[in-house]
Amino acid sequence: MKKITTIQEVKDMARGAVFLGTGGGGDPYVGELFLRQQLSQGNYTSIIDASELDDEDFVISIAGIGAPTVLIEHLVSESTLLKLLARAETMHGKTPAALICAEIGGANSMLPLALSAKTGLPVVDADGMGRAFPKLEMNTFSVYGCKGAPMIMADEFDNVVTIETDSDKLLEKLCRPVADVLGAGVMSAIFPMTGAQVKKTAVHGSITQTLEIGRCIREGRENSEDPFTELLAYLNNHEAGRYGKILFEGKITDIVHETREGWHWGKATLAAFDDPNDILEIEIQNEYLIARNKGKTLAIVPDLICILDRESAEPLTAEMLVYGMRVKVIGYSAAPVMRRPECLEVWGPRMFGYDEDFTPVEQVDV
Amino acid sequence: MKKITTIQEVKDMARGAVFLGTGGGGDPYVGELFLRQQLSQGNYTSIIDASELDDEDFVISIAGIGAPTVLIEHLVSESTLLKLLARAETMHGKTPAALICAEIGGANSMLPLALSAKTGLPVVDADGMGRAFPKLEMNTFSVYGCKGAPMIMADEFDNVVTIETDSDKLLEKLCRPVADVLGAGVMSAIFPMTGAQVKKTAVHGSITQTLEIGRCIREGRENSEDPFTELLAYLNNHEAGRYGKILFEGKITDIVHETREGWHWGKATLAAFDDPNDILEIEIQNEYLIARNKGKTLAIVPDLICILDRESAEPLTAEMLVYGMRVKVIGYSAAPVMRRPECLEVWGPRMFGYDEDFTPVEQVDV
Repeated sequence: MKKITTIQEVKDMARGAVFLGTGGGGDPYVGELFLRQQLSQGNYTSIIDASELDDEDFVISIAGIGAPTVLIEHLVSESTLLKLLARAETMHGKTPAALICAEIGGANSMLPLALSAKTGLPVVDADGMGRAFPKLEMNTFSVYGCKGAPMIMADEFDNVVTIETDSDKLLEKLCRPVADVLGAGVMSAIFPMTGAQVKKTAVHGSITQTLEIGRCIREGRENSEDPFTELLAYLNNHEAGRYGKILFEGKITDIVHETREGWHWGKATLAAFDDPNDILEIEIQNEYLIARNKGKTLAIVPDLICILDRESAEPLTAEMLVYGMRVKVIGYSAAPVMRRPECLEVWGPRMFGYDEDFTPVEQVDV
Repeated sequence: MKKITTIQEVKDMARGAVFLGTGGGGDPYVGELFLRQQLSQGNYTSIIDASELDDEDFVISIAGIGAPTVLIEHLVSESTLLKLLARAETMHGKTPAALICAEIGGANSMLPLALSAKTGLPVVDADGMGRAFPKLEMNTFSVYGCKGAPMIMADEFDNVVTIETDSDKLLEKLCRPVADVLGAGVMSAIFPMTGAQVKKTAVHGSITQTLEIGRCIREGRENSEDPFTELLAYLNNHEAGRYGKILFEGKITDIVHETREGWHWGKATLAAFDDPNDILEIEIQNEYLIARNKGKTLAIVPDLICILDRESAEPLTAEMLVYGMRVKVIGYSAAPVMRRPECLEVWGPRMFGYDEDFTPVEQVDV
């Protein structure tokens, strides 16, 4: 078990979570504030490896549901999270042994961590995607046999909606308008599972990644000429199946945002510094899904496309992008499990309307 | 207690329910078939007066949710209704003593009657509006302190959504998209209440009205020159606060239907037989809401506007209207409780976007 006790670690994790959010998942800042508040009260977050779970342990995920552009305007309600946990306990007749992130990328990474500090429950060093995704059924729990439902949704008031269904696709379709009606700042208890299921179905090591990515950026700023050096060294752990590289450097020349059907859609256009006709286009559906340069796809979902400030290496969510920003774009391989054929059937390029096969980022020449 | 044992009574009730549906509420035909099937198996429906309830009795409503144009294409699933009842029993920890109709007008009248025959539970001779309305919060239970939630929604498969909220307006907003996603053929257990609450908040005698209206039309066809004679005599029980009259006779010259936001919108235009420039316009939002002739409002919500076939006095739902039909339009007073000021604040003309006050149908010269 590892304890998270310092503000520095929390900041590292939040920064790493934005990086893994690949433009989406919402800004973890309000979750970070909530977590920092817990630490300031002498509470701490416990992280355990999945192997520390008993197979029979009851594990549950706590996640926000709604458009990230709206989520960031809502403060996290401690009482809502505690209410959800108590509800899950009553519904399943089991006390949770641990919490797990459904989505490590973005705001949803912080909620289980903060709730861990509040309740003393550990958080498993794992999640269901190793990144962020726009739809609930897009996670390894679901692909490998765990179901999101029964899902309990609650807002800051006394409104609670419980959804029971065997289909995660239907769950996605049902929870989205409910979140819309409740004002989009809705928290949920989702993916009830056993310790054995966590071991079998999760993307492992995700929380460690947020910590390490955050640490590399912080230390890179402090110690290196180039804040990207340490980060790229960490991302390129080929033995662990990790590959990362700079896809493009340039200035944002156009950015389109739209919140529609509960999602954030958009497109970012970047021009190279040395050649204004050398254009990178990044398409957004909550997350950055595809990066194209001169008709060539440089990186595509489920691999991660990450836009970082050129000077500070600060990872930027889609909502943060504005005209004139000078950035570097990193392509980073999705976790190996995320690239399996059965997974690409759920979140491969074609599931987002792109008429091309997935090509691993390390196989594309930039 | 009254027993409903004959097909003739069922047919009378279904016809009366269409009349009270004032164009909406869905065609009770599939519910009628389900109820007739129960009777053919030797089961029967029991009707009790609210005064026969103990104050502590647990009473619950079973209702379909969704656009009536879609509802009529769905068969009623017996197992869904039984599942809802069992769920309500578990959730509240109480065995229902009786069922109640939330909405007597249209299809929702038949479901509690059929479930009564199946289970032996009596149905209270009452409902929450004495007619049909497009929104869930538009009922006397709600106005006088009973709440629709917890509401349990279930479809023919194993999908169940439970909504808990203190606000019936929010409940309406939440249940509508859920019904849409689940395919609009969704059944619900709603308005859990006590016997004391039924006595205090319901519109009483509604089931008797369906029986009597149906009987009058049937006997009128058999015994009278004019099938409307007995019906109008029944509707004009001034001592009971009931007033009914013919507003218009004519031919349907135009009819517009649209299913939008889960509702059926439309407008029917009628021309008098003797003068094609003498036009009656009836506006529809699930129900017939307003009837206007030469700029003058002849009847307006919550009073009932009922369109009946001119020859047979068959009541017609909005979906049944087609060009060329020869019809009579009846204006019928809403139950006295439905016309109180606190009620008109929820379902008066202004709540449907009409810039005029409610005028009782008996006060308008036709």
